[in-house]
Parts: sequence; C-alpha cells; structure tokens
Amino acid sequence: MSEETWKTGITKIEPNKIAYKGYRVEELMGRVPFADVVFLLLKGEMPSREQGILMDAMLVSSIDHGATPPSALAARTVASGGAPLTTAVAAGISSINRHHGGAIEGCMRVLLEAVERKRSSGKDVATLVGELVEEYKATKKRFPGYGHRVHTEDPRSTRLFAIAEELGLAGEYVEMAHSLRSAIKEKMGRDLPMNVDGAIATMLCEMDFPPEMSNGIFAISRSGGLVAQVYEEQTRMRPMRRIDPSAHEYDGPAEREVK
Amino acid sequence: MSEETWKTGITKIEPNKIAYKGYRVEELMGRVPFADVVFLLLKGEMPSREQGILMDAMLVSSIDHGATPPSALAARTVASGGAPLTTAVAAGISSINRHHGGAIEGCMRVLLEAVERKRSSGKDVATLVGELVEEYKATKKRFPGYGHRVHTEDPRSTRLFAIAEELGLAGEYVEMAHSLRSAIKEKMGRDLPMNVDGAIATMLCEMDFPPEMSNGIFAISRSGGLVAQVYEEQTRMRPMRRIDPSAHEYDGPAEREVK
Amino acid sequence: MSEETWKTGITKIEPNKIAYKGYRVEELMGRVPFADVVFLLLKGEMPSREQGILMDAMLVSSIDHGATPPSALAARTVASGGAPLTTAVAAGISSINRHHGGAIEGCMRVLLEAVERKRSSGKDVATLVGELVEEYKATKKRFPGYGHRVHTEDPRSTRLFAIAEELGLAGEYVEMAHSLRSAIKEKMGRDLPMNVDGAIATMLCEMDFPPEMSNGIFAISRSGGLVAQVYEEQTRMRPMRRIDPSAHEYDGPAEREVK
Amino acid sequence: MSEETWKTGITKIEPNKIAYKGYRVEELMGRVPFADVVFLLLKGEMPSREQGILMDAMLVSSIDHGATPPSALAARTVASGGAPLTTAVAAGISSINRHHGGAIEGCMRVLLEAVERKRSSGKDVATLVGELVEEYKATKKRFPGYGHRVHTEDPRSTRLFAIAEELGLAGEYVEMAHSLRSAIKEKMGRDLPMNVDGAIATMLCEMDFPPEMSNGIFAISRSGGLVAQVYEEQTRMRPMRRIDPSAHEYDGPAEREVK
Repeated sequence: MSEETWKTGITKIEPNKIAYKGYRVEELMGRVPFADVVFLLLKGEMPSREQGILMDAMLVSSIDHGATPPSALAARTVASGGAPLTTAVAAGISSINRHHGGAIEGCMRVLLEAVERKRSSGKDVATLVGELVEEYKATKKRFPGYGHRVHTEDPRSTRLFAIAEELGLAGEYVEMAHSLRSAIKEKMGRDLPMNVDGAIATMLCEMDFPPEMSNGIFAISRSGGLVAQVYEEQTRMRPMRRIDPSAHEYDGPAEREVK
Repeated sequence: MSEETWKTGITKIEPNKIAYKGYRVEELMGRVPFADVVFLLLKGEMPSREQGILMDAMLVSSIDHGATPPSALAARTVASGGAPLTTAVAAGISSINRHHGGAIEGCMRVLLEAVERKRSSGKDVATLVGELVEEYKATKKRFPGYGHRVHTEDPRSTRLFAIAEELGLAGEYVEMAHSLRSAIKEKMGRDLPMNVDGAIATMLCEMDFPPEMSNGIFAISRSGGLVAQVYEEQTRMRPMRRIDPSAHEYDGPAEREVK
Repeated sequence: MSEETWKTGITKIEPNKIAYKGYRVEELMGRVPFADVVFLLLKGEMPSREQGILMDAMLVSSIDHGATPPSALAARTVASGGAPLTTAVAAGISSINRHHGGAIEGCMRVLLEAVERKRSSGKDVATLVGELVEEYKATKKRFPGYGHRVHTEDPRSTRLFAIAEELGLAGEYVEMAHSLRSAIKEKMGRDLPMNVDGAIATMLCEMDFPPEMSNGIFAISRSGGLVAQVYEEQTRMRPMRRIDPSAHEYDGPAEREVK
Repeated sequence: MSEETWKTGITKIEPNKIAYKGYRVEELMGRVPFADVVFLLLKGEMPSREQGILMDAMLVSSIDHGATPPSALAARTVASGGAPLTTAVAAGISSINRHHGGAIEGCMRVLLEAVERKRSSGKDVATLVGELVEEYKATKKRFPGYGHRVHTEDPRSTRLFAIAEELGLAGEYVEMAHSLRSAIKEKMGRDLPMNVDGAIATMLCEMDFPPEMSNGIFAISRSGGLVAQVYEEQTRMRPMRRIDPSAHEYDGPAEREVK
C-alpha cells in the first residue's frame, strides 16, 4: 500500500478543468503571455504588467547563444548519435549547472547578502561595496556575474537594466549591482561590466525570486534555442560528425530591423 | 586537425553583438514576446501578430498538467534522489516521446496527409474523411489527437480553436480536424473530441511547422511546469519518498479570475 | 487510489533478502562474475561458463573508445558545465542510439533474418548471402556492422570471433557473418571487415539476445569508460573549455603486457 | 581556430589498435574480467587478484534493488512516455546523487577523516570513534552508511565484509567501520548495521578510491539492472501507465541455488 496522500500546489486537474495556481487555463490562453504564466507557476502570483515585461525580456535574452555553449554542444552531440529531439534537448538542459548559467545563482547570493548587510548595518552602499570588494580581494574570490569571455559590454545586460529603469523596477539590487562594478573598478583596477548572468541575477532579486530557481529559469529560456539547435543538427548535418566548437560560421539571415 | 568549418543559421555571435535570425537581441527584448522569438528561431521568420498570439496560447496551454504525466513524475523522481534542478528537469523533458506528447506529431501527419489527398484528388472534405475513417476502421488504427483519459471536452482544445477562428487563422487543417471528428462519430459511433495534442497539431499545421519539431515545441512549453514541479519537490517533500502518482491532492490557491 | 498491483520478474526484495531471478545476492557475490549477472538479469537464466566468458569479453571490448565518440563528448561537455558525475554519464548514455552503437541492432536484424531465410528456404548459405547482397546493392542499402572509420581490421572483432571459436560458441550466425563479408567483397568489390558492432551483434545472436536489448548491453559496457572520461574531465580540465574532438593526445601509461 | 591540443590518459586509439591504460584490448578480452577493467580505467592500474574479486562482488551487490529506487522508477517512467531504452536508462542514472547512492561518498569521507585523525593523533580506535560519535550526537548529525529502510542486517554488507576478510583486504577502514557501529550502539543506543552503501564505502577506502568516484561506480553497477527494468517496462507494460512504486509484486523465478 502507498503512503499518505501528498500535496501539490501548482495545477488543479479535474475532468474538463485545468487551473494553474487557481487560474483556468482557457482564461489565460490568448490573454496572458507565456512569460507571465512562467512567473505565476514559479512565484504563485501573477506578475504586475511591468514585471511581466521584464520576465519576458529575460527569457528572450537567454534563449540562445549560438553553437558554443555546453548546452548547445551537448544537445548536438547527443543528436549526432541518433537520439530523438527531446533526448538531445534534455542533455543540453542537464549541462546547465554551476559553470554554465550558475553565475546567476552566485551573483544573486552576493547581491542578496550585500543588500541584507546594508539593511542590518545601516551603512551606505558605497562603504558597503568597498568592504565587500576588499574581502573578495583578500581571499582572491571573484564576483560572479561580472565580465564575459566574448562581450566587453553585453547588449543583453545593458538592455535589461534599461528596461528595468523604464518600468520603474530598478530598486536597491540594481543600485547595488552598479555600485559593485564601480568598487571593483576602483579597488581591483578592472572595469568588468555585468554580463547577462549578472543582469538576470539583479532582475530576479528585484522580483524576489529565490536563487535556487535561477538555473531553472535559464533552462526554460534556453529550451527554445536548444530545440532550434538540435533540429538544425538533425536536418542539416550528417550523423556522428565531429563537432568542433570553434570551427563554425553563421550563414543565416543578414541583419535586419524589427518592425 | 579538425574538419572543415560547419555552418549554423540560428544565432550570430560577435563581440558585443548577438542576433537571432538577423534580429539584434536588444531590439527584441522588451518588444517581441518570448513566444514570437521561439517561432522565429524555429521557423526562421517572425510570426504575424496573429500567429504570435496563437503560438503564445499553445505554449500556455501545455505548460503543466499536474503531477501525473511521465514528465512530471520522472522529474520529481530524479529530484528525489538528490540531483540538481536542471538534471531533474532534463529527465522530465526526455520522457516526452511517442506516447507522451507524441500524438501531436501523429495527428499532424494525419492532417497533412488528409489535406494533401484532398488537394491531389479534388475530392470534397466529407468524402475524403469518410474514406480515411473507413481505412482506419478496417486496419483497427486509432486517430491520434482524438479522445482523452481525463477530459471529455478539453478546455484547451476548445480555446485554441476559438482563438484560431477569432484571429482568422482557421484554414483547411481546422476544417479537416472538425470533419474528421464528425466522420469518426458517424462511422465508428464514438464522439471523440480533439484533445490538446490534436488541437496543437492542427494549429502547427496551420502555421506550417514540420511535424518533427512538435515534440520540441511541447518540451519548450512544458519546461516551465517542470521547473515548478521540481522546485516544489525539492523544497516541500522529503528525499527518497515513494511518489505514488495517484495519491495526491491539490492544495494551491482557490479558483480565481484573471483580471 | 492506485491501479492494480503490477508485476516484475527481476529482483525480489524482502527484509534482509535480495534475490536476482531467484538467486540470493550473497550467493552470487564473489562467486559469479558481474558479466554473468548481467546475462542473468537480461536473459533470465545463468549463462553457461562459455557464454559467461564471451559476455565478459563483449563488455570489455566496448568499455571505452577514447575521447571522440558522441557518448564521451556529450558526457565531457555536460561535466564541463558543472553538472555532477552521474548527470554527465547519463548524457553520454543517452547519446547511444541509432548511429552510435545502433549498428549492433541493425546487424542483428540482418543476421536474424538471413538465418531465418536460410532455414525456411533450405538454400545453402552461399546462395542466400549472394541474393541478400544483390538486394542491398539494388536498393543501395548498406550492411550495418561492416567497415569502420578508423580500423581496417578491428582487433576487438577478431578477438571476439576467436573467443567464440575457442569456446565452441561459433554457430550459424558466425558462419553467416563470415559468408556475408565474402559476398560483399565478391559482389560489391569492397573488403569490409566486421567492426566491433557487427562482431557483438553476431555474438548476441549466438546467445539468443533480442535485438532491442543491444543498445542496453552496449550502454552497460560503456558506462565504465564514461565514468573514467567524466572523472578525468572534472579533475584535469578547466570548466567551460571548448572541447575540440580532434585536437587531443593520449598521455597515459605506455604500452604494457597483461601479466 | 581551436585551442591547443588537450590530453587524455585513458584510452589510446590508433588504426587497428586500442589500448586501455597501456593494455591492448584484445589482450584483456577473455582474460581479464570486466570488473578488473573498470578498476583499471578508474585507478590507472590493474587490481590485484583479490582486489578484482572484491570489485566484482561490489558491482554484483548493487546491480539492482527492485522496482522502488528512484533510478528504477525514473527509468521506467521515461520509458513509459515512449523514449528509447538508452534515454530511459540515462534518466535512471541521473537520479543517482546525494540521496540515492550518495551515502557511499558520505561514508567514505567519514572513514577517511576518522583514519586520518587516528594517524595524526596517535589515539586508539576506540577513543577516536567515541569522540566522533559524541561530536555527531552533539550536532545531531547522522552517520551515512549505517541503517536501512528495509534491511536490518543487509546480506550484501555482511557478504562484502566476509569477502574482504577472506581475501586479506580488511584493513584499518574495516576496523574503523566496525568500531563506529559499536560506538553508535553504545553512545546513541541504536544498533545500526552498515547498509550496502556503507559496506561499499569501506571497501572503496580499502582499495584507495577517491570519494568523488563513488557515485560513478554505483552507476556502472546499476546500469545493468536499469537495462533489465526498462526492457521489462517496454515489453511487458502498457505505455503511460501510472507507476505506483508500492503496488508491485515479484513474479519471477522461485528461489534457487547457485550451482
């Protein structure tokens, strides 16, 4: 015999009725965008209009990053052995961890702790980030979310911060993120702009997501790109090829304007 | 030494520049919804406004179906062993295959073939679906996308068809899907409404997606629910519990209106 | 409430008692080798002494093939993102499919059908393989299990056939495999030695395994190499490196004799 | 262009030549059992005859534990959605983590630290385990590797310790494991026999394996059972069934003697 009944607070299923967190699916469809429903499922409540837009921008920002991240390469490699599309996408998702996307969680923890310290100590932000950078310098730790292998000024970060400002969602985590960059520059002598992981971390803090969820949000976003990567591998490449991550070229549509 | 340079037509990455199918990411963020960008990555072109809304409604329709589908159970079970969130979500994604979500692909193939036959034979729809149902009856085959274990009239299907009508996207695949239901009722004596797989299949046909992509689109949608399921398992349940798929109860928010 | 009790015929678990297919685990441990227990679990009966040795040799033959197969690359790539060892190994396992290891199943089906045809037609082997090769030639099909990208005379195949001969396990499938090679050479003008997939396929036919199990047996074997590959990646390489499948060198122990 | 050549010390591949850690594959096949080759790949050197037997017994001890562990349930659930055998096995492997099999690593760390403390402090074992148990008691920590949900005296543990004694492989880790059980009984009032995770941990310490490898060794072993579980699910059960982990019955061969 089984154990006692267990509880779940996500989706209610009854004959001819499906409700996510209390909202009937047919009421949501066509009216509430996917990004808002993701927010709803993960946080339990609907986002404000502004939060919904920011959430959507975050999902768009990370949907793909070309053929070189471990997720794309793992997915393509598994597809190359002949596995079905979903098996290959799953392998890609499973590569999202400490080093791939993990800086979001790391950066969230830094920002959450910094704001917590600010609140409890009553110190001003400048003093506080100064102390923090000295601590990291002394222990040779790096700040997750700052700096990028490819991009010196990541367009995704710049845009996320701009959207947050426009929408009035830039609060003390955004302030902390900016101050930290200044302090790193001043005390470590390196101007490290926030990368997209850092920018997403800041936005997730502003919207009160738990850091443990961050890899999941990244996975939801990236699943879109992974389906595209695997489908391209399956339809355009020969099986069992050796996938050199460095030797590829973009041959898709030329640059164009969003209308 | 490596083989020759390989080509990819999805995302162009250059220092400080990321473009999906030619569109700069910062132009898309905050302006073009996630569902449209998924459509863009998979089809290569932006959806029309109407197609974007339909795509979004499809993604919302399948984001979760409670704790009993194999994807949710596999993900929760893997989480229960102590694996990270993304590993568990990946296991869930990997369960999406022939029997779980696979009816979308199966139904697409039926509809594509039926419309193709109609075009090439010049027969009217009623005659054609009549012949098709007789063939299936003779060989005891079932029509994928019709009938559901739980729902006799699936609210997601009803809503998807309604949205397609409203938006002027209901074309010959929608007509074929309806006619097939009538013919099944008439000739097999069973009134089998289209389930959500069938409805999604019909919409994907209307928007000219290849059937091979259908499981991938389902996976993108369901990734949202899987993150919620795994996070709930990790934070609310004890590890290594025996997850009885039948003995659970919903204890989330009560039914409420979308404002 | 749950559905009715379901049945499993593999392992019986009671307090302080574990029995695989009727054999108590403590009776097996230290007396019956792992390869024999794999055979037992998959076939339901203990192998003969000779079958056990052949099974063991098969498992050893496929345990690793360096850093280039999709399984090793997928596993290393997932590890590179920071995933745990088992997550990475799982990604490797999941790449074993139609093109990677799948020739075992394909070759088994050819051999099973060929021997079946021989039995039912009463034709001699030479006539039968002649007809088969003509059929494949006419439809431009290739024989799975023959030829290799790297090895012109695969030492694993040679050894497996030699072991089967020594042990008296070489029966009509071995005969058929050899005859097929001769007929391919004669009628297609190409001398394609059996690769290890073909040799394993032949042995699995001789031991009456179903073709549907073949990828699983390959996965059991390869899991050994994948743990070694992932552990090396985790302990010796830096995270998020770009893993070029062609640009690696062996720097392990020099060649040595088995004592 | 790619980065510099990277190094791997596991398998050397040249045309018509495959060598694991310096040993030609054809020399190993049929002469050196699979368990020894696993040991070779993971440790870099051949085991002694005694170590090979112990390694083999460990692999046999964990090959399956019926239908209820997360690995079996995850694998069956993924198979139930229609995924291929290897995809389902991979999901099972990926569930092996902190709570499922993870006690091996935890127990190894306890034993390694305890023996290290003994060596550095010069204290006798009884004193040392006494202190250790008091520490755990004070901080309400549990000793991984002791106690089992189902088995009060695990036949696998008993047998592994017996084999180690017989073979002369029972050294200071075995002594420490026994002493710890006595101290737990004396100071915590609970007689907790070592479970199979604890026994394997002890043996891996005696053979000088790193704790980080332990989940991998468990995965190699369990891959055997997972293939059997998935194959049974695929051939004996209907797709998409609800797999109640508690409502199953063994209907395989009756108990029998190893001949």
